[in-house]
Amino acid sequence: MKKFLLTISYDGTNYYGWQKQRNLSTVEAEVERACIEAFGPECELVGTSRTDRGVHALGQRATIMCDTTVPINRVTYLLNSKLPKDIVVTAAREVPLDFHPRYSTSQKTYEYKIVNADYMIPQLRNYAEFIYKPLDIGKMKIAAAHFIGEHDFRGFCSTDISVKSTVRTVYDIAITQTESILIMRFSGNGFLYNMVRILAGTLVYVGLGKIAPDDIPGILQSLDRTKAGKTLSPQGLTLVSIEYQENN
Amino acid sequence: MKKFLLTISYDGTNYYGWQKQRNLSTVEAEVERACIEAFGPECELVGTSRTDRGVHALGQRATIMCDTTVPINRVTYLLNSKLPKDIVVTAAREVPLDFHPRYSTSQKTYEYKIVNADYMIPQLRNYAEFIYKPLDIGKMKIAAAHFIGEHDFRGFCSTDISVKSTVRTVYDIAITQTESILIMRFSGNGFLYNMVRILAGTLVYVGLGKIAPDDIPGILQSLDRTKAGKTLSPQGLTLVSIEYQENN
Repeated sequence: MKKFLLTISYDGTNYYGWQKQRNLSTVEAEVERACIEAFGPECELVGTSRTDRGVHALGQRATIMCDTTVPINRVTYLLNSKLPKDIVVTAAREVPLDFHPRYSTSQKTYEYKIVNADYMIPQLRNYAEFIYKPLDIGKMKIAAAHFIGEHDFRGFCSTDISVKSTVRTVYDIAITQTESILIMRFSGNGFLYNMVRILAGTLVYVGLGKIAPDDIPGILQSLDRTKAGKTLSPQGLTLVSIEYQENN
Repeated sequence: MKKFLLTISYDGTNYYGWQKQRNLSTVEAEVERACIEAFGPECELVGTSRTDRGVHALGQRATIMCDTTVPINRVTYLLNSKLPKDIVVTAAREVPLDFHPRYSTSQKTYEYKIVNADYMIPQLRNYAEFIYKPLDIGKMKIAAAHFIGEHDFRGFCSTDISVKSTVRTVYDIAITQTESILIMRFSGNGFLYNMVRILAGTLVYVGLGKIAPDDIPGILQSLDRTKAGKTLSPQGLTLVSIEYQENN
């Protein structure tokens, strides 16, 4: 028995998210099918982040446990030959059998992309949010700094979730703009359900002048979802990378 | 009677190019339908560049001649409300009735995008060519300089075309790379059929070491299509802008 850790990129446009759902096309179902075709029906797939419908990934991670003689340097090639063009396995390495892709993560990074212009760029309609009102990037950066560090983000997640703790540490939020494309890059030890899209939506409210940068600490402390900005649409979100602790 | 000059962006993925074709979905047919819905059946549309199937545009230009009382500042809004999401009119201005969008162009700019990495980025599969072998950008830049200026590009166009002259002036070729994405930006007074994709393909051959930069002048002089590189795939190509002479 062997365990491989995969890095997976996908265009989420045509999928109902990562996680398997009956009768719906999902990324996990496609990757599982490819693994079974490649390594046999006993193959077991475990993903790391449950990206939503329409959300993209450059660096999703998943493990497969299987009984195979396929050498590690053939794994990506073999899987890609069985995957549709909108899902690509970009790396594979062998890990110990007790490695769990969700329990030893050290950092996750997401990007949220916005077209801030008079008109949407049609080539980006499935890969970015569109906001035509001008955004004050300077204010957004000041506001973003208030999110850095360990906070209870209960007010920044969708309420229908049951997790043990809503405390997370945000390591960095980098906001950059190139012509009309604004990118917010969030790194942290983990993110709650919809948290990145709500953080991005709150920063957009700051950019629009609906929330002042100095209001952020109070909104965080309130733990009240209704005080934060709206949840931006999924197509602007990309799971960029998931990193593991050094010994993994 | 009025004439409007439109600037049009589109995602060419789902269209058989710009030009109208019987029973096929084309960008021109969609824009014409929108114009007729907005301004009535007498509306006449003339495009500038006949982009191929799968080619994209950020700055296609077209004129519409119509008898309308719609004020100019409502034209883009009105047309966009009748267009699908993969076609966007980004500007409209009134021009003299004798203005022709093909005869007074002063500069056209195209971009060709390549993902040069071990694996394709699935989000770019409809917007870039994929080349996994390493490209020597330095050599490509040296080769590109040989194309600048006025040349007979008969060896750099698809042979099934009948044009008066195959002489064109290339103003600039800028090659930039950001992480694994390589962009070649071509500006000139005009380009022959498939010329940008063949120039890009020839520069890729230089990057791969199949053609030396100093071979380019001889290949140009030969006027022989078989000596140049291959025609790269359409999805990597974007018509960026079309500019007009100053008095237009």
